[in-house]
Amino acid sequence: MSITINEIPVKRVDKSRLPEVDFDNLAFGSVFTDHMFRCTYREGRWQQAEVVPYGPLTLDPASKIFHYGQSVFEGMKAYRDSDGKAWLFRPEENQRRLNISASRMAIPELPDGLFMEGLKALLEVDRDWIPGQSGSSLYIRPFIFASGTGFHASPADAFTFIIACAPSGSYFSGKVSVKIEEAYSRAADGGTGFAKAGGNYAGQFYPTQLAARDGFQQVIWTDDHRHEYIEEAGAMNIFVRIGDTLMTAPTSDRILDGITRKSILQLAESEGIPVEVRKIRVAEVVEASKNGSLREMFGAGTAAVVSPISSFGYRDELFELPEPEDSYAAHFKKRITDIQYNRAEDPFGWRYPLG
Amino acid sequence: MSITINEIPVKRVDKSRLPEVDFDNLAFGSVFTDHMFRCTYREGRWQQAEVVPYGPLTLDPASKIFHYGQSVFEGMKAYRDSDGKAWLFRPEENQRRLNISASRMAIPELPDGLFMEGLKALLEVDRDWIPGQSGSSLYIRPFIFASGTGFHASPADAFTFIIACAPSGSYFSGKVSVKIEEAYSRAADGGTGFAKAGGNYAGQFYPTQLAARDGFQQVIWTDDHRHEYIEEAGAMNIFVRIGDTLMTAPTSDRILDGITRKSILQLAESEGIPVEVRKIRVAEVVEASKNGSLREMFGAGTAAVVSPISSFGYRDELFELPEPEDSYAAHFKKRITDIQYNRAEDPFGWRYPLG
Repeated sequence: MSITINEIPVKRVDKSRLPEVDFDNLAFGSVFTDHMFRCTYREGRWQQAEVVPYGPLTLDPASKIFHYGQSVFEGMKAYRDSDGKAWLFRPEENQRRLNISASRMAIPELPDGLFMEGLKALLEVDRDWIPGQSGSSLYIRPFIFASGTGFHASPADAFTFIIACAPSGSYFSGKVSVKIEEAYSRAADGGTGFAKAGGNYAGQFYPTQLAARDGFQQVIWTDDHRHEYIEEAGAMNIFVRIGDTLMTAPTSDRILDGITRKSILQLAESEGIPVEVRKIRVAEVVEASKNGSLREMFGAGTAAVVSPISSFGYRDELFELPEPEDSYAAHFKKRITDIQYNRAEDPFGWRYPLG
Repeated sequence: MSITINEIPVKRVDKSRLPEVDFDNLAFGSVFTDHMFRCTYREGRWQQAEVVPYGPLTLDPASKIFHYGQSVFEGMKAYRDSDGKAWLFRPEENQRRLNISASRMAIPELPDGLFMEGLKALLEVDRDWIPGQSGSSLYIRPFIFASGTGFHASPADAFTFIIACAPSGSYFSGKVSVKIEEAYSRAADGGTGFAKAGGNYAGQFYPTQLAARDGFQQVIWTDDHRHEYIEEAGAMNIFVRIGDTLMTAPTSDRILDGITRKSILQLAESEGIPVEVRKIRVAEVVEASKNGSLREMFGAGTAAVVSPISSFGYRDELFELPEPEDSYAAHFKKRITDIQYNRAEDPFGWRYPLG
């Protein structure tokens, strides 16, 4: 499906909020830029797109988003290099995945070009919001939700696609202690776990609150059948290093096809690091921790890039992880952020110039 | 948790839309009454409730409902009897279940009284919208969604609770052909399937669209492990009659605790109908269809009350169901609607007078 993207009209704000923002003390995703990109779907097609001031949406209380959670989203970032140039990281992967998610959630796919043209139009207008501070970036949130109305439990007939941006600091601060979950589950076989669908996230909040009461920052989800295999962490894919072998679970209909995950795998393979993409039993991780061969665990995702895990809880035991000098987590974090911030060669063509 | 419900202030519409509505040709849930009930949660507590004109909601694009599907809802109805009196059906069950759903979705529970007082205040104002036509009723939709903002994948700090109403005709028209699903799944063990959470519904739309292309109106979900057991139909619980025994699956963390379901079970037991609440294998239903002992299947839920199933598809076969003269579906539909519309005794105290 392809449409001609007309020139995207821009309604600019009268006065930028940029001077009010303290770029040296950015939280994650809580201050928003001056503008947003917006395109609506109705009468069977995506309508004229536009860039407008960031501001409230007006929705009928019967809009299906409120009732049936019909929504999908993406997470991506824009980076500023030391020369002031701005870059994206593998944006075509986000575009592709948003359509995969949309299809599973009965949301009309975006026509070719709409995602990238919208993104570029918005970032041209809000270019000055891309932080230059080390470790900060402009977090970009494309999302589509059901704005059509009715209490009938069926797909909406109208949707709204928005791209909004928030200059952001780091997602997690410091190391992360995780709980390997055995009671609650994130996804079903044949379900929506591989999609970035809104409801997948809300379902994790309560079990994560319970884990937080026991001192954990994140939950590592296991398969819902027997809680035998490590799957993902909801906002991150999970990597395990046993000896010098780097391991992660294969993607499936329960596991998100993470862009940071696949970038790490590609880097590792190119560097000759032994990689195993296979189902990882909780028992083997526990065993490896006990016999000293478990050297690292880390999460990987756009928001946090790479998050080293300092310990994991399993049943009533807490397993501390060592801090190896030759940390894969630190290595891949550096390699990926060096590419993102244009501090290193880009052997795979992942960087996308915003000019 | 309990709060004193202050008198609920009412802002009335200037001019009712009631005269515009064709009550003899009502669809389901697509025309809304003049008013809605609204209460917001912020700063750690539910604020002053109010009844206001039904109208657009204004929300920040970063409201977490758009991103993380954090929402729960209920479905219930108000009925008008031949004397013009109005009734609810087991509303305390909806109140109880809404809080169970809220808890699972990390949404603050409603304090005692807020749900019932809000409902009564709204229905007092919009009382004339309760249809008197046979088979029609006022569909009532209480829902709570995350209105707090931020791109961080964590529970919102603000929520909006709304009750909106739609005078409605029947949900399904005619008999229903269903597909027993073996590829897609609705819920995971340890997931959110027992909650009326928005995201549970969006996940069903695509597989239901696929089934519709093959001529089915609904999907019967099976367990996600081996697709061996019949679970529920998403908007309905499922009953099977083999011989004279009425069977339905036990509730679990994958299956909604339906109010129509439990009402049918209670009626059946009081009438001496043999009832089995147990896991039902797809294979035994297929076998019973082949040997002629499968006499009925029907769905049960608030929207449709009881929906007779005329046929089911399994793998590539279509199994037609007989139309027994002593239909349980017809019997329970009549017994329940007779209670709802105050046409019969109410042995269990299910009717709730609105005056």
